[in-house]
Formats: sequence, structure tokens, C-alpha cells
Amino acid sequence: VITELRIQPSEMQRLVEALGRYGEQPGGGIVRPVYSPAWKAAQTQLGEWFADTGLEVREDGVGNLFGRLEGQTARTVLTGSHIDTVPLGGRYDGALGVLSALAAVRALKEQAGRPRRSLEVVALCEEEDSRFHANFWGTRGILGLIRAEELDHLVDDDGMTIGLAMRSVSLAPEQYHKAVRPDLDAFVELHIEQGRILYDEQVPLGIVETITGLYRYLTTVEGRTDHAGTTPMDLRRDAVQAAAHMALDITRVVEAEGRPAVVTTGKWDVQPGAWNIVPGLASFSVDLRHPDESTKQRLAVSLQQTCDRIAAQRGVSVRYELASDVQPMAMHPEIQRALIAAAEAHGLAYRSMVSGAGHDSQLMATRVPTGMLFVPSVDGRSHSPAEYTTPEDAARGAEVLATALHHLAY
Amino acid sequence: VITELRIQPSEMQRLVEALGRYGEQPGGGIVRPVYSPAWKAAQTQLGEWFADTGLEVREDGVGNLFGRLEGQTARTVLTGSHIDTVPLGGRYDGALGVLSALAAVRALKEQAGRPRRSLEVVALCEEEDSRFHANFWGTRGILGLIRAEELDHLVDDDGMTIGLAMRSVSLAPEQYHKAVRPDLDAFVELHIEQGRILYDEQVPLGIVETITGLYRYLTTVEGRTDHAGTTPMDLRRDAVQAAAHMALDITRVVEAEGRPAVVTTGKWDVQPGAWNIVPGLASFSVDLRHPDESTKQRLAVSLQQTCDRIAAQRGVSVRYELASDVQPMAMHPEIQRALIAAAEAHGLAYRSMVSGAGHDSQLMATRVPTGMLFVPSVDGRSHSPAEYTTPEDAARGAEVLATALHHLAY
Repeated sequence: VITELRIQPSEMQRLVEALGRYGEQPGGGIVRPVYSPAWKAAQTQLGEWFADTGLEVREDGVGNLFGRLEGQTARTVLTGSHIDTVPLGGRYDGALGVLSALAAVRALKEQAGRPRRSLEVVALCEEEDSRFHANFWGTRGILGLIRAEELDHLVDDDGMTIGLAMRSVSLAPEQYHKAVRPDLDAFVELHIEQGRILYDEQVPLGIVETITGLYRYLTTVEGRTDHAGTTPMDLRRDAVQAAAHMALDITRVVEAEGRPAVVTTGKWDVQPGAWNIVPGLASFSVDLRHPDESTKQRLAVSLQQTCDRIAAQRGVSVRYELASDVQPMAMHPEIQRALIAAAEAHGLAYRSMVSGAGHDSQLMATRVPTGMLFVPSVDGRSHSPAEYTTPEDAARGAEVLATALHHLAY
Repeated sequence: VITELRIQPSEMQRLVEALGRYGEQPGGGIVRPVYSPAWKAAQTQLGEWFADTGLEVREDGVGNLFGRLEGQTARTVLTGSHIDTVPLGGRYDGALGVLSALAAVRALKEQAGRPRRSLEVVALCEEEDSRFHANFWGTRGILGLIRAEELDHLVDDDGMTIGLAMRSVSLAPEQYHKAVRPDLDAFVELHIEQGRILYDEQVPLGIVETITGLYRYLTTVEGRTDHAGTTPMDLRRDAVQAAAHMALDITRVVEAEGRPAVVTTGKWDVQPGAWNIVPGLASFSVDLRHPDESTKQRLAVSLQQTCDRIAAQRGVSVRYELASDVQPMAMHPEIQRALIAAAEAHGLAYRSMVSGAGHDSQLMATRVPTGMLFVPSVDGRSHSPAEYTTPEDAARGAEVLATALHHLAY
């Protein structure tokens, strides 16, 4: 009976549009940071939808919102994502995972009745790191990884502590430790791909094998400031020319490695930054990602050797400051199998893939068997008002999610 | 008798150090913008030195300060430079030209008596363009190139008009047109090289053939903003990678052209400028200089063709915004000959050279036979507290200047 399970594209569209009104700006784009009035209003709306579906609604000590369908045991299969957004974000990043989870659990409740394991929909809080630089705050609460002093030490750009921000939406920050959940048997997160692989290949589903590893550092080149008119080319030690050479060559190294290796040089600073002065200082960020830890480390060494060699050739100095080093995280084989079986049951094409972006799942997977399902992002757009997933793709994703949850919970 | 003319290094050192105290900052470096109290105090000091030398002292309508040695005719040979500085500039840029002129005219007055043509030392005002963006303001006053409306329209960073700033140092801005000088037969400017050619080659004198031409434009590359984790390398249109490629390749084109062609990519802007976003927009300034106009124009075309080609290869767009296009200016052959003859009379090595930097002489040369004499900059440093010319090089320069002025005025 469960392969007959249908979720209507129109239902997904209605949910996405309704939630997307919270924090929507007059010129387009959503501003819905954690613990803001817009975020609180969206949570309240979600809670009403959970209640309308007959789920037991509960908000935990850090602001994660749950809708629970009690099963024969208290052991729980959790599904969902987050509803906080980046500034001027879109309607889909995070939100679609929560709404698909709601639609899936509603369909299961209606068509399959009471599960064996309890089923729970969740809207996790502060995934985007866009207000407090408290990445995966909600998941950290669930896993017992929040430290008490963070409540007073984490501040937003206006200097408000996360503890005070929690109080402003009627949470009791001192209750943060009550968010811990020792009852989770599985976590399944549907998310938009945020890239263009599924869209370009016209494949409706991606089943994540690994969330990529990340190695971030700042490269700073020091040369010599000189007069742009009076210093012959052959006597210069131009920091930005050396930096440009480095940025190009490290990109070539990563391109030669091939997919899924990626490197980005996104943030630049060139000093003194005058038209008529040969720059003496230039820095650029390096964001290197690979799902295999040893390859990631090998590439990191190779990139720095490449830059050292260019620095020596050009008579400049170069230094590196590590910003973060996050290991890749494999998704649990059992959850991957459940997602693959569900896709096959629906007769849908899928591809196994790497998540190049970070997600709550990468932290959840350190303690709970976890899996991720991707649906296509039109033109690969994300973190933008242009973010879009067709209602058909959204509904297909929710159906496959429901079927996978059926495998796991019934 | 005039080849026996001697100016003591200690005298040059004393003058440089005394003038360098005006506007000197506690941590080093001089801040002496035009019409500031520090500039006014330096002008007053100079006027006293002019008077002590027996020169007739006069300030014109825009603030140029003159010390005149009357000759047999009213036709005038003018020599000097400027005393305004860039922020945190050094003691030599401009100032050494005024002080050498004073020392040279003093020596001539003492050893050669009354000249045929009148001889005049000048401290020109606002050469550096560092307060009002009124480049060569003093020279423009002398040549009748100031327009009345500029007095109200040119403002400094605090919003003060140049007219009000003139009043603050007791000038009458409405008298600006009285600065015009139809009596000039020659202008000779001694200046530090501001580069390292003379210093590296251990040649004490540079005789300028041409002040270089300048072509400045902003190159802006537009690609596509993408997620740094989810966008494979082969699907990116990274604006900063394209810009880095362009900046490197245009530099190679200019390097292949050889001296004296120079190009500088000094000012960069990369947007959105986040670690985890593939940049969609990148711009960099291009400052191209060559003393031959047709070569300058040919290079400008070649650089833009190079960037167009890279843009097409990389699937990004590129546009160019012209900022300035200044033609090269040849120094007058007669003045060059006088300087060469003077160097030879003193038995000093010299080299003919291009000025890569701009100077009052380039504008003065449009109306008055003009020449420039360079002395070495230690380590090529300029526009910096590290600016330095040895007292011996300064004195040799002043002696050669005096001898050249003797050729021209006696």
C-alpha cells in the first residue's frame, strides 16, 4: 500500500508559499534569523500545522520545534531540517526539509496508521550561522554539546547575547540541557541540493553518501610597496600579482584532481589599494572541500607547496592562517539503503552524491544514524531569492522521504 | 669660474632637516597638505630663507612662493618644485627641488653676480593632489588654467572649498588670475627619482627626456555567484579567477614589451567577498604608463584584447571604465642640453631617462621650455617616511642645477 502513497505538488507549493511569507522582504528575499520575530511567527505557524495534523507539539529548551506521532515504542525516528535563513535567503533552504517531513508524516499517519517506532518532525534552530555564529545550535542542544557559558558569550551583530535572544522569544535559556535526546534511532533530512548537478543531469533525487570535508585558511602575501610609475617591472615584488598567480595555480591543482574536489578564493584584501601604488600586501581566503579526508589533507599540502614555490620565484613571502578543518562525515549505510529502496519503490531515478555544503546532518551523524535526501535546485541557485525547486520535485522528494520513513519506523 | 661652484652636502642636509620639521608627525612621516597650518609655516620659513639670501620675496594669488634675483631683463628663468606632501610623505619629494633651487641661486648670486635673465626660485602649491584633487594647482595658476568656478567646487575631505582654504592662509582667492606669468623663458625642476634606477646603477644624475604617458582604467569582471561547496569547478563562472588570470596576463604583455613600459593592478574589489561564495563580481584598476604615445595606445588595446579573450574563454563578461588618459610630455631639448652640459662640466656621470611619475614640469612644458633633473632615491623609496637622498647626491644635484641655470640665465 505504501508505494501508492501520494503527496500532491500543489500541497508542497502551498506550504512553501505560506511559510515563505514569514520574514519576506518587500524587494524579495527572506530575512528570518533565529529567535527573531519573523522566525518566531514561522515557528508558531508550523506548530499550528503540526497540531492540525494531529501531532503532539513541543518546543525544547533551545527552540527546536517538534511534532510527534507516538509509536509502539518511545524510540524515535526524527526527520526535518531548519527554518532560519541567511540574510535575503530563499524559501527552500531548510524550510523544504521541514515541510516535506510534515507532509510525509501526515501521509504516513493517514495511510499507514500508528508506527512501530515513534515518528517526529523537527524544525531545528540556527543552522545557517547567520545571527550568532552558533552553527548547528539546535542540533548541538539535542546532542548535549552546548556549554553553559555560550549563553552569555555568543552575541549577534547588535551585541545581544544568545541567552537574551532566547528570552525574547519566551525560551528559558537555563533549560538548554533539557533539549538532550537520548531516544533517537535515526535522523533523515531532506534538503535542496544547492548545486546544479541534479538539475543539469535531470535526476530528481540525490542520496548523500558523505558530507564533504572542509579546510579553510587565509593566504597572505607580503611583497614591497612601490611607486607605480617609477618602478620598472623587473624590480617589483608585487603582492597582488603573486597572489593572483597563487590563486590561479591552486585552482588548477584542484581542477586537475577532478570532481568532487572544489576550492574557492572568495575574499580578497589588497593593500594599500591605490591605483598608483604597487601593492605590498595581498590576502585571499581558501575554502577547500573534499569528501575524502586523506585526499583533502593531501590537496591542502599541495596547495600550500604551490604557493610556497610561487612566493620563492617572485621574491615575496607567504603565510597561512588556518580558519577551520572539518572532517568529512559519512551518512549511515542503513539510512542510505532505506532511501535507495524508497526511490526504487517509486520507480524514480536517483544518484548517490556528496554534499558540498554543511548541514545539521553532519553533526547529528556523529551520534545518531543519519541520512540525507537531496532534491534539485533549479539552475543550482541557493542562498538567494532565486532559490527554487519545482512543486513536482518537492512532492517526489516528500513521497520518497515518506517511504523511507516507513521502512525505518513501521 | 662656474665649474668651481661648490654647494656643501652639509648645507643641503641642514635645509632638508629644517624644512622637514614642518608637518612632521610624532611617529615619523610628514603631513603637509596645501593651505594647512603646517604648509603655511613651511612657506613662511622658506620666505625668510629667500629674504636672507637677498632675493625679492613674493607670494602670488594662488599661494606659489617666489624668491627673485633680478637680472638685466625681466624675462625669467624659473626653478623649483613643491612643498606640499602626500599624507605621511617624506622630506624629499618636492622639497628637495625647492631647496636645491635656493642653494643654486644663492651660489650663483654669490659667485656669478647679476644674471642676464632674471632668476627665480619657486615653491609651487598642491602638486600632490592629496587635499583637493587639484593636481598641479599652482602651475595651473601660473599658466592661466584655473577656472573661477573651481574655487567653490573643489572641496577637501572635510567639505571645505579650496577658496575658503585659501582665505584661511590669508590668500584672496578672487586674485587667482593675477598668478599668470607671461614672462617665463624656462623652467627647471630638480626632483628625487622616486624609483631605483639611479640608485641601483650608482649614477648620480638623471636627465629627463620625457615624462611618461598614463592610461588608467577600471576592469570589471562579472561572472556568477555560486555556493562554494556545491558548485563543481567545471560549472563555475568565477569572477575573481577570471580577474586574476587577466591581471597576470596583461602584466606579462607589458613585461614582454620591456622597460620603460609599466602596468600596475593596485586596487581590487571582490564581491560578495565571502569565504563560502564563488565571487560574482571582481574589479581591478589598471595603471599603464609609457613615454611613447603610440606604444601606450597600442599596449592599451592589447591589454583589453587580452582580457576580452580570457572573458570569452571563461564565460564571464568584462567591461572597462576609463579614468585618465594623459599624453607623454617631452622635455625641451635646449634645457636637456643645458643639464647635460652642466653634468659634463662637473665631470659627473648621468643617464637620460623617463620620468614614470607625474610632475609640475609636465604641465609647465605645455607652455614654457622645461627640463627636469633627477637625483637618486635610496632604495627607490618615495611617498614614505623612508624617502632618502644622501646629502652628497643632493649637493651634486644642486651644483649641476646651478651650472645649468648659469647656462640659461647668464
